[in-house]
Amino acid sequence: MTEGSLADTNPNNTALLDSWRSNARRWTRAVRTGEIVSRISCTNDAILNAIKRLGPSRVLDLGCGEGWLCRSLTSAGISCTGIDASRELIEIARASDTQSWYVPLSYSELVRDAAPIGKDFDVIVANFSLLDATVEELFTALPKFSGARARLVIQTLHPFHIPGTYRTGWKEETFGGSGTSDWSPMPWYFRRLTDWIALLHPNWMLERMEEPQGANDAFPASLLLTASRNDKTAFCAQVR
Amino acid sequence: MTEGSLADTNPNNTALLDSWRSNARRWTRAVRTGEIVSRISCTNDAILNAIKRLGPSRVLDLGCGEGWLCRSLTSAGISCTGIDASRELIEIARASDTQSWYVPLSYSELVRDAAPIGKDFDVIVANFSLLDATVEELFTALPKFSGARARLVIQTLHPFHIPGTYRTGWKEETFGGSGTSDWSPMPWYFRRLTDWIALLHPNWMLERMEEPQGANDAFPASLLLTASRNDKTAFCAQVR
Repeated sequence: MTEGSLADTNPNNTALLDSWRSNARRWTRAVRTGEIVSRISCTNDAILNAIKRLGPSRVLDLGCGEGWLCRSLTSAGISCTGIDASRELIEIARASDTQSWYVPLSYSELVRDAAPIGKDFDVIVANFSLLDATVEELFTALPKFSGARARLVIQTLHPFHIPGTYRTGWKEETFGGSGTSDWSPMPWYFRRLTDWIALLHPNWMLERMEEPQGANDAFPASLLLTASRNDKTAFCAQVR
Repeated sequence: MTEGSLADTNPNNTALLDSWRSNARRWTRAVRTGEIVSRISCTNDAILNAIKRLGPSRVLDLGCGEGWLCRSLTSAGISCTGIDASRELIEIARASDTQSWYVPLSYSELVRDAAPIGKDFDVIVANFSLLDATVEELFTALPKFSGARARLVIQTLHPFHIPGTYRTGWKEETFGGSGTSDWSPMPWYFRRLTDWIALLHPNWMLERMEEPQGANDAFPASLLLTASRNDKTAFCAQVR
């Protein structure tokens, strides 16, 4: 099996991509009109702060969607490249933002050939966008196009919000339940906390964990992980 | 303020110690008759496996209580020293086990003077026993009496089980509710996931996370962290 082939052949991964193609305009409206309350109350600020704190020059946004995060970073003077497997979302992102660089590219395509995006990224970010089952090979490939001191910043659903039993595996998001007819259901791969931490090894080392939580909320909305490259040679060279 | 002084003067820390003195015999019965279902179904095996996997010679059990873990390790041929702030529990532990070394010592006493326990521990373990608000100074002191390749193994309540709002702070355990008259309520300091991870820095580096969960349970019973000493000089000397 070649790298990335699972992402191309797993039926859930295919259905996941299809849902983003189908939901592209509906999703764009949801993001741009502030429909998703937790994004407004805490998770948008949390991801922006986590990135800005690192003082990057070049950010790669994995699963950039309609481009919200790239636009925010670019307007703060940070160069941003966004990739997304949905061509529909990339076209929407490009139409609203001529400053960022948007590339229609799936994670498995990126793993096979990173030439379209360039290299030497300081921060690689995935904001609620690691939704398929094949993240291992992506995490292994990232050092190929990131600097020795690069950070990986991941925001994902807090595991508190798991629907049903707490086991890693495929779930389905219906975006508000069966009554809403303007969304296509999206399969997504839930990971236990433990599995997120294990995924980082051996290429990344957890540096910081955050649990963004609205001031009036009983539970956190998301889990936010910042990791540095676990490259012993580079790390120890800095110590000397 | 001298080291350990907060632990001596914080009224919740005092009430916490008082509850263990008062509950010593009741707790011993609960552990020894298997009253605590999650211990039998998964958390006892989880902590034993986490320690044995590391192949230690000398283990320090922080908050050893009536000695269950020391007895299990000693019978597996691993030398174990247990400390507990409750003299009552240390006496009970000693009465059932002449092979392990039990010392009546609070964490703040240990921080001030570790001479009573010796040094060069390979594994330092805290099994549901980091219950007060002043763990920072304890974690900072541990390298004084552990080897350069030592591991810290912590098992604690999974944050899913937080009673009420998810915020770090003091809570109260009533051991089954107000109807049970043979337990004294215990104040304990709940930490969010984020705060556990932050506590490890800068002296310890998270190596592994586990979430022990019974085969038929919807949610994990506990959070189990294994960390290695974050000693850059020692670490990089191994790499060379």
